[in-house]
Amino acid sequence: MRTTTGWQSRGDGSTVLERVEIGRRELRDDDIAVRVDFCGVCHSDLHRIRGALGEGVVVPGHEFTGTVTEAGPGVTGLAPGDRVAVGTVVDSCGACPMCRAGQENFCFEGPVTTYGGRDRTDGSPTLGGYSREYVLRESFAYALPGTLDPAAAAPLMCAGITMWEPLRSAGVGPGSRVAVAGLGGLGHLGVKLAAALGAEVTVLSRTPDKAGDARRLGAAELLVTTDDRRTEQARGRFDLVLDTVAAPHDLSPLLRMTAMEGTLSVLGYPLETSVRIMDLVQGRKNLSSSGTGGRRHTAELLAFCAEHGITADVETLPSARVADALDRLGRGDVRYRFVLDMSDLDEPRS
Amino acid sequence: MRTTTGWQSRGDGSTVLERVEIGRRELRDDDIAVRVDFCGVCHSDLHRIRGALGEGVVVPGHEFTGTVTEAGPGVTGLAPGDRVAVGTVVDSCGACPMCRAGQENFCFEGPVTTYGGRDRTDGSPTLGGYSREYVLRESFAYALPGTLDPAAAAPLMCAGITMWEPLRSAGVGPGSRVAVAGLGGLGHLGVKLAAALGAEVTVLSRTPDKAGDARRLGAAELLVTTDDRRTEQARGRFDLVLDTVAAPHDLSPLLRMTAMEGTLSVLGYPLETSVRIMDLVQGRKNLSSSGTGGRRHTAELLAFCAEHGITADVETLPSARVADALDRLGRGDVRYRFVLDMSDLDEPRS
Repeated sequence: MRTTTGWQSRGDGSTVLERVEIGRRELRDDDIAVRVDFCGVCHSDLHRIRGALGEGVVVPGHEFTGTVTEAGPGVTGLAPGDRVAVGTVVDSCGACPMCRAGQENFCFEGPVTTYGGRDRTDGSPTLGGYSREYVLRESFAYALPGTLDPAAAAPLMCAGITMWEPLRSAGVGPGSRVAVAGLGGLGHLGVKLAAALGAEVTVLSRTPDKAGDARRLGAAELLVTTDDRRTEQARGRFDLVLDTVAAPHDLSPLLRMTAMEGTLSVLGYPLETSVRIMDLVQGRKNLSSSGTGGRRHTAELLAFCAEHGITADVETLPSARVADALDRLGRGDVRYRFVLDMSDLDEPRS
Repeated sequence: MRTTTGWQSRGDGSTVLERVEIGRRELRDDDIAVRVDFCGVCHSDLHRIRGALGEGVVVPGHEFTGTVTEAGPGVTGLAPGDRVAVGTVVDSCGACPMCRAGQENFCFEGPVTTYGGRDRTDGSPTLGGYSREYVLRESFAYALPGTLDPAAAAPLMCAGITMWEPLRSAGVGPGSRVAVAGLGGLGHLGVKLAAALGAEVTVLSRTPDKAGDARRLGAAELLVTTDDRRTEQARGRFDLVLDTVAAPHDLSPLLRMTAMEGTLSVLGYPLETSVRIMDLVQGRKNLSSSGTGGRRHTAELLAFCAEHGITADVETLPSARVADALDRLGRGDVRYRFVLDMSDLDEPRS
């Protein structure tokens, strides 16, 4: 067993995490060890720490970039010194229809999540990227394109792929009309990706505060959803609505703006939200959701982002300030993703 | 005002309807008068009579076939003696994006429903096809192909188009795998249409009773949904699930059998059913619904049915036995659609 340092929640819902020594497995044949350089702070980390997604004692973090420090004898594609990115899944059965389709995130046996999961071999709990080192199978690490800033690229691995999958699934391209509800960590990447795909993008927001940002990110406009006249004009307009709002909310207004046979993709994981079937009848609309992505599409996303120069807009903090990041994220005070710089874990505890 | 005879509910939830004299408007320029020959009995008629969909005093009936008896001076496409079919919509604004797309059923101003609606010109309530005569705009009547039996064709106008729209929307054809949950008025037409489109069709049912019927209708097999081993084998199998079950039910098992990026189309109008968003995450599945169809697709459906010799399997009763039909429909005792023969309304009240 190797050891490293990480940030662990206390299990009491507090966002003040403890700096702890954690174990990492010795490298298996096809494993690599990664020095974690930057780890994004995802809203689901906050859910998990607060206990809404199960037990609250975790080392969070499932979108990180780092540097390979060691490789098992069977590793063929990566070598020490290579920069890599890791997302929400670190293993899967490899044999089910979903894994064979490259959608390991939907593995029928359950994907091994980067934290809060169980290793398939020894059953040990997985501990996430809020730590200085991670050990995983080579095939779930992705070479990070050299043109992408490693701090700003980290959020591509969860927020980015979560936006990419529905855009891809809906075949968004030139001529598509895409709305993005909620301009946060997910939403701002949704705008960038949809615009880069050639779509006409509209940001839906309760206030006009972010209209300038919306345009800068690539949106044609920001539509204030409390303006009934504007929303009525937008009835049936959007081929795809990426709903990134995390709080429970009424889906009816968003469905009303969805085009006939269009899709409302609910991606902010509003845990208790449900929809009445009857609300879907009018216009034969689709309601969908998604959960990150598999290896094939994640690699595709990184290539697309390298080609178009897309990364997240981030605010980078030393990892010791993780509580600040979580608290501000909980208040919506972030433009647009916090990333923790893990290098401070090399220093002795202050 | 012209008059005719029809069957009207009492507003107390009873399925014993009253034979009453009802008014029909004098023909406007583009109106036709239709002698109603056969009218199907739809589950939504029962909902309405019982008061679940609003006020209970109605003359139901929104899938009928008949014979043109008179035509206004501006009518160009139909003439007395022509056989026609009429569905759930008899007028719409004609100007909104939905009407312009041929989806009058989703008219932004609200389509005028065949019964329980309000005429756009004079605001009078619409009275349905459980009657001997109907007056409507020519453009909402469809020439009935001569090869189709008029009694068995009547259910195409609601049950049929309700199945056709999601099949069409999903692009079902050879190679598609379609499941039909519930083998009733909707479901049995779903099987016939999907099979005629070239799909491999599976009927999902709680019991094996209808396995023979399922195959006769064109299904490859019937899968008993209480058999956990069989349903587990079918995990992620179906590109499209047509869920025609009218009672509230758990959608999770059906979503589990839906393929990645496939669609569960909920069409039995289980009024209070809702779905938790989180149930859609796994496999990026779509939940959809629909409500009958517009003029363009309805005409297309009738042409398809004529080409493939498709009509409903019906049990035809004299209209005076409407209570029997409604009660048996409520118990699920129908294979597969009741149709009322309205000719008994020409006889004096017994």
